Amino acid sequence: MRRGGAQSYPAVTDFLKSGLYRWAGDAKMFDGDTYVELVCSPSNPDGGIREAVLKSGDGVAVHDLAYYWPQYTPITSAAAHDIMLFTVSKCTGHAGTRLGWALVKDRAVAQKMSKFIELNTIGVSKDSQLRAAKILKAITDGYDRAAGDDDDDSSGRLFHFARRKMVSRWAKLRAAVAASGIFTLPDELPGHCTFANETVSAYPPFAWLRCGKEGVDDLEGYLRERKIISRGGGKFGADGRVVRISMLDTDEAFAIFVDRLAAMN
Amino acid sequence: MRRGGAQSYPAVTDFLKSGLYRWAGDAKMFDGDTYVELVCSPSNPDGGIREAVLKSGDGVAVHDLAYYWPQYTPITSAAAHDIMLFTVSKCTGHAGTRLGWALVKDRAVAQKMSKFIELNTIGVSKDSQLRAAKILKAITDGYDRAAGDDDDDSSGRLFHFARRKMVSRWAKLRAAVAASGIFTLPDELPGHCTFANETVSAYPPFAWLRCGKEGVDDLEGYLRERKIISRGGGKFGADGRVVRISMLDTDEAFAIFVDRLAAMN
Repeated sequence: MRRGGAQSYPAVTDFLKSGLYRWAGDAKMFDGDTYVELVCSPSNPDGGIREAVLKSGDGVAVHDLAYYWPQYTPITSAAAHDIMLFTVSKCTGHAGTRLGWALVKDRAVAQKMSKFIELNTIGVSKDSQLRAAKILKAITDGYDRAAGDDDDDSSGRLFHFARRKMVSRWAKLRAAVAASGIFTLPDELPGHCTFANETVSAYPPFAWLRCGKEGVDDLEGYLRERKIISRGGGKFGADGRVVRISMLDTDEAFAIFVDRLAAMN
Repeated sequence: MRRGGAQSYPAVTDFLKSGLYRWAGDAKMFDGDTYVELVCSPSNPDGGIREAVLKSGDGVAVHDLAYYWPQYTPITSAAAHDIMLFTVSKCTGHAGTRLGWALVKDRAVAQKMSKFIELNTIGVSKDSQLRAAKILKAITDGYDRAAGDDDDDSSGRLFHFARRKMVSRWAKLRAAVAASGIFTLPDELPGHCTFANETVSAYPPFAWLRCGKEGVDDLEGYLRERKIISRGGGKFGADGRVVRISMLDTDEAFAIFVDRLAAMN
């Protein structure tokens, strides 16, 4: 039931056999002129920053910035793409509220997007809209209260709180991976974050965990037998020796996960 | 932005040019064997009870029972169609909550419906689900409290309250129509309501108002000039001398509406 990034994009067009669009797979393999390229940046599953790879004048790029928040990745510059999608889901963790928004340069495109939402769902739940407005206001209020006092973390600066949490979890995960000796993780990607005004590493919401152990060709199955639920690389177009693991579970579940991982060898 | 009944059904299949389905118009004019027939009962706009008109063994009927609630129409029997759609929208007035449900006999069909919702929206907003659960519980609690005391209306029996409201509004509308002399309304449709356990008339949430005045061929425009907003018959496949008017506006707006209508001649 997750949005799940790129792997869910083809869903509705393929399901309804749309005569307008069909899923054409990986943009790197595409050689036509007319397309909509979906750029998920930071990438799900691996957290890397992505740029559009197709350059035709007849094509359109849609940037999905669901994970472009300072707790996950350095905000290196103001994003200024033609069509940018956002959601409270990964911003604050309110995925269940089912609310997103878009920043769109072309008014006619924005109107078509509004029309589609009207036709498809008659608009977002008012309950969700009220909830999201309250949540976003609470975040900005927290930063207003803390203005001029960067060290005051009692005022509820959400992104700073969440970044400390991500730093702590990634440290625990890297320690567990080092203890086990059979896993590897992507390298840390540092950058200057214009929001935090410091150089920080990316701390993606998913760990893209690879296993080098002889004979483990189905890492998802290997981990499942050891009571760790993950999503296998095959679901993301990668091989079976890599899995995606959520870094956003409860503290209790995360502690059990790293303990189990550290004990594997 | 209204759901608006039958006239919005073709929206998504046509918009995406679905290869699975296309809108074929009025079921009465259809002569194929394979179809999905949408039966909106009580009907929007006119409030009448409808039955499926196509009978092919390869066809499927979907009953939209959005308005099948005791404040609007006698509940003459337990509905037992193969696929039945409901919504809190017209049941309690919480259209903005965007929550509906379905009763479906065939498990495989129900699973396909769930899958579509998952692909299309990843599921209904949790905020909406919590809100709707609270609302529906408040209604059943009201009836539990009133059990055994049919005359006790202080306990909050929602459908009884809403029916009294509809009876009162329809009486005012019929009086205004009689005062004006240029309008007609559908006849009252009485039936035995198994919920209220009495014979009651239908009091539809929309009035299907017809004008007999010479020269008024665009009733929607005629009323708009006189500061009454309605939806013209043309939008429902009818002629321009009839309009649909909401019976569910605020008390204040409804009072102004009937006063304006009564003054026309």
